[in-house]
Amino acid sequence: MKYVYFFGNGYAEGDASMRDLLGGKGANLHEMTRLNIPVPPGFTVSTEACLEYLRMGELSGNLRCQIEEGVRYVERLVGKGFGSKDNPLLFSVRSGAKVSMPGMMDTILNVGLNSETVEALAESTSNRRFAYDSYRRLIQMFGDVVLGIPHEEFEDAIEKLKREKGKGTDIELTDDDLEELVERYFHIYKKYKAEFPQDPWEQLFCAVEAVFRSWNNERARIYRRIHNIPDDWGTACNVQTMVFGNMGDDSGTGVCFTRNPATGEKGLFGEFLINAQGEDVVAGIRTPDPVEKLKEIMPEIYAQLEKYADRLERHYKDMQDIEFTIEKGKLYILQTRAGKRTIAAAIRIAVDMVEEGIIDRATAVLRVDPGKLDQLLHPMVDPDEVKCLLTKGLPASPGAAVGKVALSSSKAEEMAEAGDKVILVRPETSPEDVGGMNVAEGILTSRGGVTSHAAVVARGMGKPCVVGCGELDVDEKEGVIRVNGVEVKEGEWITIDGTTGEVYLGKVRLVQAKPSEHFRKLMEWVDRIRTLRIRANVDTPEHARIAKELGAEGVGLCRTEHMFFEKDRINIVRDMIFAESSEKRREVLEELLPLQREDFKGIFREMEGLPVTIRLLDPPLHEFLPKTEEEMLNFSQERGIPVSKIKERMRQLSEVNPMLGLRGARLGILYPEIYEMQTRAIIEAACDLKEGGCEVYPEIMVPLIFSVREMRLLRDLITQVANKVMQERQVFVNYKVGTMIELPRAALTADQIAREADFFSIGTNDLTQTTYGISRDDAAKFVPVYVEKGLLPEDPFVKIDELGVGKLVKMAVELGKATNHQLKVGVCGEHGGHPQSVRFFHKIGVDYVSCSPYRILGARLAAAQAKVMEELSPS
Amino acid sequence: MKYVYFFGNGYAEGDASMRDLLGGKGANLHEMTRLNIPVPPGFTVSTEACLEYLRMGELSGNLRCQIEEGVRYVERLVGKGFGSKDNPLLFSVRSGAKVSMPGMMDTILNVGLNSETVEALAESTSNRRFAYDSYRRLIQMFGDVVLGIPHEEFEDAIEKLKREKGKGTDIELTDDDLEELVERYFHIYKKYKAEFPQDPWEQLFCAVEAVFRSWNNERARIYRRIHNIPDDWGTACNVQTMVFGNMGDDSGTGVCFTRNPATGEKGLFGEFLINAQGEDVVAGIRTPDPVEKLKEIMPEIYAQLEKYADRLERHYKDMQDIEFTIEKGKLYILQTRAGKRTIAAAIRIAVDMVEEGIIDRATAVLRVDPGKLDQLLHPMVDPDEVKCLLTKGLPASPGAAVGKVALSSSKAEEMAEAGDKVILVRPETSPEDVGGMNVAEGILTSRGGVTSHAAVVARGMGKPCVVGCGELDVDEKEGVIRVNGVEVKEGEWITIDGTTGEVYLGKVRLVQAKPSEHFRKLMEWVDRIRTLRIRANVDTPEHARIAKELGAEGVGLCRTEHMFFEKDRINIVRDMIFAESSEKRREVLEELLPLQREDFKGIFREMEGLPVTIRLLDPPLHEFLPKTEEEMLNFSQERGIPVSKIKERMRQLSEVNPMLGLRGARLGILYPEIYEMQTRAIIEAACDLKEGGCEVYPEIMVPLIFSVREMRLLRDLITQVANKVMQERQVFVNYKVGTMIELPRAALTADQIAREADFFSIGTNDLTQTTYGISRDDAAKFVPVYVEKGLLPEDPFVKIDELGVGKLVKMAVELGKATNHQLKVGVCGEHGGHPQSVRFFHKIGVDYVSCSPYRILGARLAAAQAKVMEELSPS
Repeated sequence: MKYVYFFGNGYAEGDASMRDLLGGKGANLHEMTRLNIPVPPGFTVSTEACLEYLRMGELSGNLRCQIEEGVRYVERLVGKGFGSKDNPLLFSVRSGAKVSMPGMMDTILNVGLNSETVEALAESTSNRRFAYDSYRRLIQMFGDVVLGIPHEEFEDAIEKLKREKGKGTDIELTDDDLEELVERYFHIYKKYKAEFPQDPWEQLFCAVEAVFRSWNNERARIYRRIHNIPDDWGTACNVQTMVFGNMGDDSGTGVCFTRNPATGEKGLFGEFLINAQGEDVVAGIRTPDPVEKLKEIMPEIYAQLEKYADRLERHYKDMQDIEFTIEKGKLYILQTRAGKRTIAAAIRIAVDMVEEGIIDRATAVLRVDPGKLDQLLHPMVDPDEVKCLLTKGLPASPGAAVGKVALSSSKAEEMAEAGDKVILVRPETSPEDVGGMNVAEGILTSRGGVTSHAAVVARGMGKPCVVGCGELDVDEKEGVIRVNGVEVKEGEWITIDGTTGEVYLGKVRLVQAKPSEHFRKLMEWVDRIRTLRIRANVDTPEHARIAKELGAEGVGLCRTEHMFFEKDRINIVRDMIFAESSEKRREVLEELLPLQREDFKGIFREMEGLPVTIRLLDPPLHEFLPKTEEEMLNFSQERGIPVSKIKERMRQLSEVNPMLGLRGARLGILYPEIYEMQTRAIIEAACDLKEGGCEVYPEIMVPLIFSVREMRLLRDLITQVANKVMQERQVFVNYKVGTMIELPRAALTADQIAREADFFSIGTNDLTQTTYGISRDDAAKFVPVYVEKGLLPEDPFVKIDELGVGKLVKMAVELGKATNHQLKVGVCGEHGGHPQSVRFFHKIGVDYVSCSPYRILGARLAAAQAKVMEELSPS
Repeated sequence: MKYVYFFGNGYAEGDASMRDLLGGKGANLHEMTRLNIPVPPGFTVSTEACLEYLRMGELSGNLRCQIEEGVRYVERLVGKGFGSKDNPLLFSVRSGAKVSMPGMMDTILNVGLNSETVEALAESTSNRRFAYDSYRRLIQMFGDVVLGIPHEEFEDAIEKLKREKGKGTDIELTDDDLEELVERYFHIYKKYKAEFPQDPWEQLFCAVEAVFRSWNNERARIYRRIHNIPDDWGTACNVQTMVFGNMGDDSGTGVCFTRNPATGEKGLFGEFLINAQGEDVVAGIRTPDPVEKLKEIMPEIYAQLEKYADRLERHYKDMQDIEFTIEKGKLYILQTRAGKRTIAAAIRIAVDMVEEGIIDRATAVLRVDPGKLDQLLHPMVDPDEVKCLLTKGLPASPGAAVGKVALSSSKAEEMAEAGDKVILVRPETSPEDVGGMNVAEGILTSRGGVTSHAAVVARGMGKPCVVGCGELDVDEKEGVIRVNGVEVKEGEWITIDGTTGEVYLGKVRLVQAKPSEHFRKLMEWVDRIRTLRIRANVDTPEHARIAKELGAEGVGLCRTEHMFFEKDRINIVRDMIFAESSEKRREVLEELLPLQREDFKGIFREMEGLPVTIRLLDPPLHEFLPKTEEEMLNFSQERGIPVSKIKERMRQLSEVNPMLGLRGARLGILYPEIYEMQTRAIIEAACDLKEGGCEVYPEIMVPLIFSVREMRLLRDLITQVANKVMQERQVFVNYKVGTMIELPRAALTADQIAREADFFSIGTNDLTQTTYGISRDDAAKFVPVYVEKGLLPEDPFVKIDELGVGKLVKMAVELGKATNHQLKVGVCGEHGGHPQSVRFFHKIGVDYVSCSPYRILGARLAAAQAKVMEELSPS
């Protein structure tokens, strides 16, 4: 059984494909070696060795032999001796599982140092302090990792020594101080009845065992559980020659990117330090130089670095983030990985690489994070500005906004009318606040999650929004908001950043990001690749226009109830609710008809030639009743209805669980005249436009059905009204009738329902609520605890829950299309704009997703990515 | 193509197996003929002929030929002539589909009468009045059914004639009056530009066509839609010789059962009239004689009747309900069908028939309606008593109860303490009313459905209960209830019948039904046949005892929250809710621990040797807070907590959708100390009993989980506490840990959850709420309209919705058992006691159902029936 795989000097036994056996880090070291990248030589002990060790409780004789052979091999390559008193070879011993588990498992550096070799190292580096510092680090790490001595013991010893010597920082300790520290460390070992092994071989075997054991430490186990990593993978162990950048002025260390991670511009970008170790760059005690300066100081090294960087970038076909060390005039590459970058850089790099012939368009499309595309559209807080952070909440709708605090919708409207820019700050918002939200620059709430009313409406409006600011106390009575003693009065300036969730005191300067030519090119490829269609959720002509500009191919959800809340209508809607007979209700609805018709005409006009899905009235009627005493009095006076009667009606309409109550299709079945009016408004609007030569494709959608029987009844009702209008007007309208699938039973019986529907639109918001039995309005009480305990690793209202809710969605698609081959299926919940969810919807055969306008770019990109991934690995 | 099938005089072309072709009624006429039962001869025109007619719009020449042949055949058999002026042959023309669709389609009698044959009939019957009455009926039916003349026209004509002649009833009209009526009917025909065909052949063809057309009339189409009958079956048409029981004293008509339908006793049971038609028996103008009297008057006929009855009973292997007519000394059997019977009779007949060798035990088990078995256990309103019906509601929990009206729980307790029998009357009940329900004889509510709080608790308590009495106005303030102006004061007597939903004024005498020896025998067979286990939902030792007596094989659901509401505890529970830290909460829970332990001990003791499933706390905590101002004041004073703080806590805990809020496992995750206390109480109780030599099998059940992660966390918590207690006590308890499956996501991911659960108990109540998106608390607002419109043909909270909810249940069973072969799956929702649902659960592989004690008998029987049916038609 082969357990040990060598790498070094251009030859490696493994390669990048052997992640299972060598771990991710190991496989990458082997791969780099094969690319003739100067990687410090070493060997990888395989995951199979780890599993054997965990089973047997000790390293087998065979395994120890192979490790010895590995050490001999490295000795020959580097011309140093492990345990040598002249030229000692030191190793780093690091874990490396198949997937990266950052910080979860253990590492031991400088293996091979002992009381003798430390002196040899001091001599060869001419740096006794460095040698003793390396030695005490080994002793400390070994004690902690291998022997389980609490690391506080060692830290306490350093602190004590510094106090005694009157030194403020570790850096001030001299070589003698550190030698003394080593002695004190040995005393700690004694206290724990342990001994530091002077035998380098014992150090090495113990270190390998400790790395293997760390696979099963508690934090690694928890990490695996959370990330669904199987327990039986095991970790590999990389034993690699230590190299040092602090061996004089011909040594150094640095990091660099192969392209600018902020802008994407081509060329090395990074920094370095001469005569320093990697940690010195991080520690920030010396200021590193930009990497270009290396060109002057060490032109040959710089040329090599450029060559290797280019080789690595072309090999990995992506911008690389490279760590390097120069030891006595020799360049070593310690690590390479894909570099993090801004969204702007990501786009530029992807497009440039296509043009350089490194990657193809499909790959370019995969390189950009769809979730960040909307950042290109929103103003941002100027990153260079000095800011005073007030508090932080959940980023609910991207972009930044500056305005004066307004604590109520009416105050916001008043201030806006006076010409002020306003941030509406509320504990949470309700449909009554829509007026205030409409005039505000941004919205801030102390309660609610990213799918709360405030968040959903703000995203729909494309306004920056921060929600769930737990620290924030909104005191409407006193006209002030407070965060940990800091007060901001109504009318004072704040700035919110809906991309990060941050809230700043005062006015912060905003900068506008502008889509680039690279972006235009990328989106062209995206649209050519994707097959999933993208529509928008919009309620007004203005938003329809924006959506179309952003590439929407129709409206997937137009919520008619938002129209009902407008100032000039809400009282007519209330009249309808107070109507005592179907006739009286019809009379009132006659008043609403022309208003609705105009609403629809506006949207149809903007979406000329594209389908527009209009959802018939959905929310429970009590949502339209007056909420406050004042509103109640106003309505009572205006209509001459006694307050007692208003309250009585409110009591009649109140529900224990409104989410599961009288709403959606149930309204249409109890009060058919409402859906009749809405259908008439839709078809009349369509007729008006068609007479003016504008092509319209209305799709009439029934919400919240659970059975084909409801669908059949309402479809008949809608068809009758539509036919009547078309006959009256002598205009033919190509309209469709479909339904939301937003209750589990609708998904489970989709085969039946599809016989009576032209299309399904899957309402994943409500479907998630009922499938999980979680009311979004009440979730704040327990969901945070669930997240903290890893019980809800991802918010199912943000990312589609593929296992549960997704199973129902898949069922709806498959059952529906099986009985109705013409059936179009869309998704119009919040998930329709979430990139990973979009990929899932593509995979299961959904025809289109519909999302708020500002998520359209991301949805388009995610759809293209889904198509590319499907072609890469069909299944 | 053969369309017409003859039957008569012992020979028939069809038989009982040909229902598809001949319809149910037709196949039965052929079968009886083959049994040498004297059926009036005739022929059946097949469903294929119907479909052909509906396709072509006319009777084909071939079909008309075959009908003519049929008529000739019958003429030869009966020696009469169709259209003959001497001895006219008359036909009835009746529809008859594969399954009975009572009253949905059309019938025409006396076909063959015209102005000439009516005189011949008058002569042969010596009854001119009868002949003309038959004639005018033919004209009337023909006009209505064939020609579509509104039947009101004919009825108006009769009324007018009666007024003119000064006659009060139809019976008083003479033969001359009727002859005049015929003339007037012809005038009506003229008004509609129609003519009554004098040609008998034309009458016959038109009648057959009308019967075929009636397959597609609106009420038949609606009926088929509701009952899921395919449109393409078509109906057959039976053309049969008319026979008359009113041709003199050697004629007569009657109905009889082959056994007593009230008691099941063997022997003919029925009544007859000499010289009368069938409708005379129904009309009630003459009082019929008991069928035994026929033995005296016509001993030969009686002997024949007995012989035929026995033959039919043995042939159909069931008690028969037979219609017969004697025409001029000749006995005809017109119809036979399985007779309706009381539950007591059903049991006796089934058991007797086994002992007579007519049926086997499996068949006997199928013969009894499980839904009615509980009638045997409850006192009933004495059927012979004169009663004054006050109003009617929904029958929610069977049995009758007499008591004085109490309008509040406290009043009920007060009156009960004073020794009064009480009926608790409330608009609806809440957990606070449990005390009053406990002392009441029965419960009556004006609101709520059969799964309302009142209904569920009453069934659990085995108390009669009537809910949803819409007419009932409960005026607690005035201390009175009102129904349409009738007032009953608090303290006055009423009687309720939870089996029928009826409410009577005053005290009505009740009678106790006592299970018979026949019953005992049947249940013995039932238990031997069934494989599905039956458990009970009980919360107290008393109910556990009753459940065991009724055959429960364990407790499937013990709800711990009911224990929390008891008077001596509710304030401790409230202390827990007001606790400000986990420690304080633990302290309060210490007080509850011994009380809970005693609760469990009581139930374990009653269920010795049987499994007891205990559900950990489920309802949202706000349910335990004081509801009224008075309670709040009491609690505030007793505990020294300011009312403002109580209100604050209530506001904090209040939820928009409590059904989907902080409850179930979510409580256990936020407040682990609650579940820890409950687990400790369960295991300690088990240890105590085991030490006393009593075997106990506790099953600890977690409610409302949606993921395996929650299950794993809570299972670990429960196991830790249980192990600790067992170690402390040094007693081993064989306990299990499982979960409710009551959210769609739990069912959808049951394969995962099963890895961490020993058992599933499917909570079909909540699963139905979330799958349909219907809150039971709010359903009353729209469900009645849904039922009225046929959108919810069956209440999904009563009968499991197989298509939707059932699909999830099936998924839970299959997925769960696939990953955990040891997994036991039960059902503990209301459906667990519903016979048809029990059959479904058996079919999909559920191991046990659990229901309220009084539904156990029915569940046992339904389980046996399911097994029998499975063996009859496997798959």
